[in-house]
Amino acid sequence: MVKRNVPVTVRWSDMDAFGHVNNVQVLRLLEEVRVHAFEELREDGGPSMLESGVVVAHHEVEYLAPLVWRLAPVPVDLWVTSVGGASFELGYEVYDDAPDGTRTTYVRATTTAVAYDVTSGRSRRLTPGERATLEAWLDEPVPFRRRSR
Amino acid sequence: MVKRNVPVTVRWSDMDAFGHVNNVQVLRLLEEVRVHAFEELREDGGPSMLESGVVVAHHEVEYLAPLVWRLAPVPVDLWVTSVGGASFELGYEVYDDAPDGTRTTYVRATTTAVAYDVTSGRSRRLTPGERATLEAWLDEPVPFRRRSR
Amino acid sequence: MVKRNVPVTVRWSDMDAFGHVNNVQVLRLLEEVRVHAFEELREDGGPSMLESGVVVAHHEVEYLAPLVWRLAPVPVDLWVTSVGGASFELGYEVYDDAPDGTRTTYVRATTTAVAYDVTSGRSRRLTPGERATLEAWLDEPVPFRRRSR
Amino acid sequence: MVKRNVPVTVRWSDMDAFGHVNNVQVLRLLEEVRVHAFEELREDGGPSMLESGVVVAHHEVEYLAPLVWRLAPVPVDLWVTSVGGASFELGYEVYDDAPDGTRTTYVRATTTAVAYDVTSGRSRRLTPGERATLEAWLDEPVPFRRRSR
Repeated sequence: MVKRNVPVTVRWSDMDAFGHVNNVQVLRLLEEVRVHAFEELREDGGPSMLESGVVVAHHEVEYLAPLVWRLAPVPVDLWVTSVGGASFELGYEVYDDAPDGTRTTYVRATTTAVAYDVTSGRSRRLTPGERATLEAWLDEPVPFRRRSR
Repeated sequence: MVKRNVPVTVRWSDMDAFGHVNNVQVLRLLEEVRVHAFEELREDGGPSMLESGVVVAHHEVEYLAPLVWRLAPVPVDLWVTSVGGASFELGYEVYDDAPDGTRTTYVRATTTAVAYDVTSGRSRRLTPGERATLEAWLDEPVPFRRRSR
Repeated sequence: MVKRNVPVTVRWSDMDAFGHVNNVQVLRLLEEVRVHAFEELREDGGPSMLESGVVVAHHEVEYLAPLVWRLAPVPVDLWVTSVGGASFELGYEVYDDAPDGTRTTYVRATTTAVAYDVTSGRSRRLTPGERATLEAWLDEPVPFRRRSR
Repeated sequence: MVKRNVPVTVRWSDMDAFGHVNNVQVLRLLEEVRVHAFEELREDGGPSMLESGVVVAHHEVEYLAPLVWRLAPVPVDLWVTSVGGASFELGYEVYDDAPDGTRTTYVRATTTAVAYDVTSGRSRRLTPGERATLEAWLDEPVPFRRRSR
């Protein structure tokens, strides 16, 4: 139970001509969630993980119900699904909980991010401090329904 | 050898603050490729598949090399990796071929799309004409390197 | 002194390759401000002005200082600069006030919006209720420095 | 008659929930036109004007008819309306010409751009080569119908 909840603002322009939040804009929302979370992955006195360098290597995203634009932010759960030597995987769930407790899950997704050395332009190992923070966020894998073979 | 090649225009604004084409904008480029291809999936005298309804159910995308903005369009190969009763999966490869034949692959991706009945708001079976067109585009699965478990 | 203050969230992706909030994205932020304000322009029991129809006819925007991305929303003042029979003009100021009271103004802008009948596809007169709301928001013209001739 | 014609690709995603090319995306299209034109503003052996530095100080844009998405690029005329010591103004017209010669003008706009020294972070005078190129593109002012006071 170490998922972060990061509410994210949906813009009116995130809707496409079908009147729903566009599937690509969903990844834009997840980017915002990630940027806010990376601000927390900051060792004392040091740069944030976003500044010290991280690149996206892989996304997987599953759309389960149409997300409709509204003024109120939409809740997104964010957690870590695995930590490797130079990379880690994030899990996300975008949802609404009705007053009666019923959950509508709009989107589930994962992002694999690789630590990156901005000066050398190459991947680098995660620092012990980064590993410790990421491992404190570890939770379950994302239960995708549909997969590419 | 039934892959479509659809060159796609990269906008200057597709770059993010790191000076590369942003990972989310890559999915925007693939959307453009898909829209152009769906225009071909039009039975004689009928609406295009985009108009008769299709929704994105799943994306998987792998970033292999940074894509840098340039004036010339970037080539994208598009094909069908599988066809089901109500859905199909598309495969993509974004790349450049050097004059000496060396290929730089920037991105590989898949999209699962579900046929959708706009009036009822529900998924529907693919028509025989749609199936025939999609099956004519069938080619190999996308060889992802990194997968979520 | 009837300006509305509408803080707006800046996304990381609003930055362009120069590392500043892109000039076009500034208009995207102003759209969000406008959408939020139009929600207030809702007569009792009726649709919002956005739903009953309004189209943008003209924008003018002046960039005075570079806006840099940050986690905290940026304050935007919004007001009405004039009201006509079928149209009205909005004024905006995007700024930060330092603790010592010094104001940095990033952007000043205006938008001319025309009331629009969605069913007929034509412009329409403002209703008495819309006029009353807009007139209650009337304030000074926007003091642009640079103008096209 | 020194207007450049720069056809620009409209993306499906440039449409908003109203099914028209969104007013902010029109400025995105004009940015693309500008980027392509600035590539020509390159002195022999030197950097393009975009690389040596130019910032947007002002936009004015007027929407005359709704622009609908289509596969074919939309023609945009681009020219210079005035040249100053450190800045210049561009004019744009976005339109379609029917086979019978009838013109539909969708958008007219201007952009004031200021030459900028990337290293000092300050505005700079236009070089003689830049002035000569810009003056060769001089044409009429943009005839806006609606103006802020």
